[in-house]
Amino acid sequence: MQPAKTMTNDATKGADAPFYLPSADECDVFAAAYKGRMPLLLKGPTGCGKTRFVEHMSWRLSRTLITVACHEDLTASDLVGKYTLRGDETIWQDGPLTIAVKSGGIAYLDEVVEARKDTTVVIHPLTDDRRILPLEKKGEIVQAPDDFQLVISYNPGYQSVLKDLKHSTKQRFVALDFDYPKPELEEEIVRKESGVDQDTAMRLVKIAEKVRNLRQHGLEEGVSTRLLVYAGQLIGKDIDPVAACAATICKPITDDLDMQRSIVEIVATQF
Amino acid sequence: MQPAKTMTNDATKGADAPFYLPSADECDVFAAAYKGRMPLLLKGPTGCGKTRFVEHMSWRLSRTLITVACHEDLTASDLVGKYTLRGDETIWQDGPLTIAVKSGGIAYLDEVVEARKDTTVVIHPLTDDRRILPLEKKGEIVQAPDDFQLVISYNPGYQSVLKDLKHSTKQRFVALDFDYPKPELEEEIVRKESGVDQDTAMRLVKIAEKVRNLRQHGLEEGVSTRLLVYAGQLIGKDIDPVAACAATICKPITDDLDMQRSIVEIVATQF
Amino acid sequence: MQPAKTMTNDATKGADAPFYLPSADECDVFAAAYKGRMPLLLKGPTGCGKTRFVEHMSWRLSRTLITVACHEDLTASDLVGKYTLRGDETIWQDGPLTIAVKSGGIAYLDEVVEARKDTTVVIHPLTDDRRILPLEKKGEIVQAPDDFQLVISYNPGYQSVLKDLKHSTKQRFVALDFDYPKPELEEEIVRKESGVDQDTAMRLVKIAEKVRNLRQHGLEEGVSTRLLVYAGQLIGKDIDPVAACAATICKPITDDLDMQRSIVEIVATQF
Amino acid sequence: MQPAKTMTNDATKGADAPFYLPSADECDVFAAAYKGRMPLLLKGPTGCGKTRFVEHMSWRLSRTLITVACHEDLTASDLVGKYTLRGDETIWQDGPLTIAVKSGGIAYLDEVVEARKDTTVVIHPLTDDRRILPLEKKGEIVQAPDDFQLVISYNPGYQSVLKDLKHSTKQRFVALDFDYPKPELEEEIVRKESGVDQDTAMRLVKIAEKVRNLRQHGLEEGVSTRLLVYAGQLIGKDIDPVAACAATICKPITDDLDMQRSIVEIVATQF
Amino acid sequence: MQPAKTMTNDATKGADAPFYLPSADECDVFAAAYKGRMPLLLKGPTGCGKTRFVEHMSWRLSRTLITVACHEDLTASDLVGKYTLRGDETIWQDGPLTIAVKSGGIAYLDEVVEARKDTTVVIHPLTDDRRILPLEKKGEIVQAPDDFQLVISYNPGYQSVLKDLKHSTKQRFVALDFDYPKPELEEEIVRKESGVDQDTAMRLVKIAEKVRNLRQHGLEEGVSTRLLVYAGQLIGKDIDPVAACAATICKPITDDLDMQRSIVEIVATQF
Amino acid sequence: MQPAKTMTNDATKGADAPFYLPSADECDVFAAAYKGRMPLLLKGPTGCGKTRFVEHMSWRLSRTLITVACHEDLTASDLVGKYTLRGDETIWQDGPLTIAVKSGGIAYLDEVVEARKDTTVVIHPLTDDRRILPLEKKGEIVQAPDDFQLVISYNPGYQSVLKDLKHSTKQRFVALDFDYPKPELEEEIVRKESGVDQDTAMRLVKIAEKVRNLRQHGLEEGVSTRLLVYAGQLIGKDIDPVAACAATICKPITDDLDMQRSIVEIVATQF
Repeated sequence: MQPAKTMTNDATKGADAPFYLPSADECDVFAAAYKGRMPLLLKGPTGCGKTRFVEHMSWRLSRTLITVACHEDLTASDLVGKYTLRGDETIWQDGPLTIAVKSGGIAYLDEVVEARKDTTVVIHPLTDDRRILPLEKKGEIVQAPDDFQLVISYNPGYQSVLKDLKHSTKQRFVALDFDYPKPELEEEIVRKESGVDQDTAMRLVKIAEKVRNLRQHGLEEGVSTRLLVYAGQLIGKDIDPVAACAATICKPITDDLDMQRSIVEIVATQF
Repeated sequence: MQPAKTMTNDATKGADAPFYLPSADECDVFAAAYKGRMPLLLKGPTGCGKTRFVEHMSWRLSRTLITVACHEDLTASDLVGKYTLRGDETIWQDGPLTIAVKSGGIAYLDEVVEARKDTTVVIHPLTDDRRILPLEKKGEIVQAPDDFQLVISYNPGYQSVLKDLKHSTKQRFVALDFDYPKPELEEEIVRKESGVDQDTAMRLVKIAEKVRNLRQHGLEEGVSTRLLVYAGQLIGKDIDPVAACAATICKPITDDLDMQRSIVEIVATQF
Repeated sequence: MQPAKTMTNDATKGADAPFYLPSADECDVFAAAYKGRMPLLLKGPTGCGKTRFVEHMSWRLSRTLITVACHEDLTASDLVGKYTLRGDETIWQDGPLTIAVKSGGIAYLDEVVEARKDTTVVIHPLTDDRRILPLEKKGEIVQAPDDFQLVISYNPGYQSVLKDLKHSTKQRFVALDFDYPKPELEEEIVRKESGVDQDTAMRLVKIAEKVRNLRQHGLEEGVSTRLLVYAGQLIGKDIDPVAACAATICKPITDDLDMQRSIVEIVATQF
Repeated sequence: MQPAKTMTNDATKGADAPFYLPSADECDVFAAAYKGRMPLLLKGPTGCGKTRFVEHMSWRLSRTLITVACHEDLTASDLVGKYTLRGDETIWQDGPLTIAVKSGGIAYLDEVVEARKDTTVVIHPLTDDRRILPLEKKGEIVQAPDDFQLVISYNPGYQSVLKDLKHSTKQRFVALDFDYPKPELEEEIVRKESGVDQDTAMRLVKIAEKVRNLRQHGLEEGVSTRLLVYAGQLIGKDIDPVAACAATICKPITDDLDMQRSIVEIVATQF
Repeated sequence: MQPAKTMTNDATKGADAPFYLPSADECDVFAAAYKGRMPLLLKGPTGCGKTRFVEHMSWRLSRTLITVACHEDLTASDLVGKYTLRGDETIWQDGPLTIAVKSGGIAYLDEVVEARKDTTVVIHPLTDDRRILPLEKKGEIVQAPDDFQLVISYNPGYQSVLKDLKHSTKQRFVALDFDYPKPELEEEIVRKESGVDQDTAMRLVKIAEKVRNLRQHGLEEGVSTRLLVYAGQLIGKDIDPVAACAATICKPITDDLDMQRSIVEIVATQF
Repeated sequence: MQPAKTMTNDATKGADAPFYLPSADECDVFAAAYKGRMPLLLKGPTGCGKTRFVEHMSWRLSRTLITVACHEDLTASDLVGKYTLRGDETIWQDGPLTIAVKSGGIAYLDEVVEARKDTTVVIHPLTDDRRILPLEKKGEIVQAPDDFQLVISYNPGYQSVLKDLKHSTKQRFVALDFDYPKPELEEEIVRKESGVDQDTAMRLVKIAEKVRNLRQHGLEEGVSTRLLVYAGQLIGKDIDPVAACAATICKPITDDLDMQRSIVEIVATQF
């Protein structure tokens, strides 16, 4: 099995566009940045649609998309590639970023601040006028073709001193802010993806809106659109709406009993 | 010996259902989540029946269950698999999660917050619409079949800032809260599993209830049903009930001498 | 040389029973737990006889005993086994826990909280109804025979937040509290093991009793019976009793000069 | 592919000089330091032109330039070279610093305080009268030719106790301070590199000036010239100037909502 | 070259006894502990003669002595032995402790609290009635002969919570306190080892006494006898006594300028 | 290329003596310590001439000098040597300390407190009457010849609790304090090494004196003689003296703007 094929969503194979309704000029800015070969930084809370936006744009631009969920132990080698022993053979194996660069696609490093700092080595030369990816261990330099683009994301709500992008990294990117979709847009998403009727979808969206406002009263993170879709799916499988909302909108997002009670009350106003 | 066979409880082999009496709609939510291929997060204190619940559901759904007790040093490779040297041969060895995905079973990651953060890499793609498990070291992607389900658990009472699931992980799961079984239910479990009579089982359950209330007075964790069963077993082997309760309900759960005295007094009201 | 033989005390080889006089019903609880295949947790201060008790019970139950002194760097692999290179051969080498499980003996993990957390992986499946030991690196599962028992110990006086057993581990064990032996019992031990006369043994035990009371005035840990035996041995080799007590009862247990003075005064009341 | 060729900008190949307008006597000091074989330390904020200055000087002095972006995991071996396994062959691979020394070029270690401390081993002997580079792993010493020069940079605004150059390192360098280019100079750069007209360039520069003043009111880092060029490029691709400035001058440099509002107001005074 | 020979001081080869004058009954206690096969713990400040005492006793008991200076990175393997690659051969290499056990000598672990905690694994079984040394990596157990003895030392003045012997380790040892030698004894040592006359030696000893008293006024550690010998040696090589004392009694023991002044004043009262 | 040759300054090859003018009796003490085979500890600020002093003495004593700049990751193996793979051969490679011991030269460990603690293992046996260097990995002991000497240095101004020599290490050395050279001496050095005239040299030395006094007002470290030489060199290459001093005496030693202003004012009084 060839990783370059399997680890990507091949955007060109004629599938439908991933459903995305722009809230402002973000598609134009993405397209302009793409044309100008400027790398892109997406900022916003969990589950507000950043990933979907990138999927949508990669479809519109007919570019292959490779997504990497970054984490505390992710190193430059994980992105670029490694020599690995296979029996008594030593094989070079391109990492996901190298695959993206070579194939002229879009590489999306999700929650990039989680990754280890040596990723700087591969991000910096890709984001200045050199546009190169050094494969240090191979002693090679890969020149990024014009149609390659680097996109990274992070959640400003989580940044700490220890986990932040260096300014010398940030200032290499055009940046876009994201937030949860507007109500009518989110209602459409929930309805379309979970199969519930418009009324139920609207109730779920209203609940989400109020739950997200709890962030001003200490809730750490709002509820994502994905969880609203889960709620809709459970309701569609004959789970009582209140129980469905408890299992999707309340329990996953907080362990605080007072917060849970507040969310239950919000749910009760709708179901 | 083939690990895929030996590390699993083969739920399909006609054994009796693991004894479990639902306390609310948790079985329906599990079944609906399973049908909708939504991953599941179980929250609750030690020994309240989360593991038993998963065993029960895997039996009901006729799915093989693979359980992994997570710990501080557990890595993505421990879950997914590794190349290992065996003599002069290099052998790929699937990890427990890969075995579960390939066989279309239920993978249960117990106390998942204990594991290292690079497990994010395998959890995320399994829990969104891709439903894939990347075997990075092999350069392969395993597509999870429809009948695979991921279940994870954690104990909200223990979370610290350092050991918490990221929101971007949590918000990928339908969540269910667990607590100790209701008295009549727990009495039945203790009686059935330890062999004591109903009166003794009821006394043990009453002790447990009062001990668990001590959590409001500083006891760190309540007594699990398992320890009640142990108490019953010791009593059934002619150990004095007071000594049996000391060895099972008191000593394992606290080192605090005042707490131990309070528990001894509670035991004295029953035996 | 075969480790399985050499690293164990073969309790069955007809030697005398290790000298142990029970202080309460601990032998009965151990035997009942053994019959019920419940794992055992021993709690108590350094040198109060926990190890001797396990040696005694393993002799009574005619079980081979394998003891592992846990420490900060002890890993699951140290317990379970490893592949090691020997010349150009790769050899699997069972660890002490695997040897104990395979041979149906008693495995005693002394001061288990010192060990690293991945020992959870081997302790948990051995202590629930599966009673299995996963040899992850070999891809094997060893089913513990009925006559295998796991015993662990820790010293509650030393626990910190960083070094404590998880509740999900603790609540898998029947627990027994230990303390120093009663005076008449300890006198017998000291006399028998050091060869001093009854009068000297009694004086040493009286000193120990008073020194242990200093724990209420800041002494970190009492004096062990072993050190009393050392004192007796030095006296038997013509060392002045006061000097012998200084070298065994005073200097090893505290660096605090005030505490040392208090202990010297206690010794002076007896010699 | 030969790393020595691919990882360098070959300054001698007749290309135009990298655009750089000196603000003071920095070019003379660089040239004098070069002639006197004194190593150079460049201090200044992100994106103020340090890298461009080095590129310019390497062109003027007809020296090959090798740039290394330092990071937390960069070791002396990463700079000097390593033996690597390639199939069943062991190959020595010169690191970027060794390549620079051997070819008599300029080695530029960008943000050197980020690198690990064992880089001291290679920096010190290169910066005293020995001018040698020890290849420890090869047991070789490379004598730097007269035309080799070491240049390092750091950003004084970021230094902490943990990340600082040792005095015994700092005091081996001639140092130059850098700041953002003067308005007329920066206007010329923005116009030239983004293609906007003079009026737009001047507005962008005025915005930058005011944004940089916000550093006195808590903004962590000013906006780099590079981001002004990005803004110009987006405007040139028909993105509304206000949106273009938001995506380049505002979002990448701060997550603070008040700061973002202040920047938006500054932008509104110009567009 | 054979390590067993080269790393030891062969006490039996007829050399003179290392010069040591007992200050109390420490020789008798050592000899009694040796006969009774009880391990020994030496406590005392730097340079007070612990090492010399062990050398002396190993000579008196005609035992080979192997000394290991412990440090933060010393592991059980460093003490016990390792398999090492030598060309294409794998060779087991006994560590210093194994050499001492096999040869029935005295192993002296100097400043044992500095070593890593896995040394517990080798110390414990050597210090209880098993008297065995497990060579885990070889799967062997070495039974210590009767004439083997373990001696460890530490400096109580330096202990912190992080670096202390566990009570379960300490309470396995007979302990002896050491302090600097008495004046007449120290004078003899200084005279004999440095070659100065009695008057100079006495002045140096008087200086040492007063400097050691400064510990009550904040001096971290007193001056060792070794440094007095150094002072004598420098004086014997025509260095001015005041300069000699500055270089040996003052500068090595403190960086505090006030303390240095106090020491200079003390020196001035004698020279 | 043979490391033993290339990594040393061969002091015997008839070159001129490294320029050094003693400020007190330090040369006599060094020579006496050398004759008496006592190891030497040099204390003093950065750039005050410690290294030059050692170079000078190694020339006077006709000993080869090997210098090692210590750092946080320097281990005992880095000093002593390692087996390394070279193709399919395993080669032992002596480290710099072993080379120095074998060749009977002077080993100078600069800023030794930066090194890792396992260097204790090699320092201690070299600095007591054994004078041996254990090559643990080879199982060899190298006996230091009489003409070998160990010299270490550290900067007392930088010591923290974490980075200090253990007393048991310090008290093995004869110690010498260093400070910046006296004005007339420093003037001579600056003149001789930079080529400026006496008047300019004197002005630079006067600046240095005043800058060093700023240490009493918060300047972390004074200016080294090396930087004065740099200033002279720049002036000799037609850089304006004020700019030359800024680039050498001001910018390298402090990032504090107030301190920089104070230094600029000091410079203005001279040029």
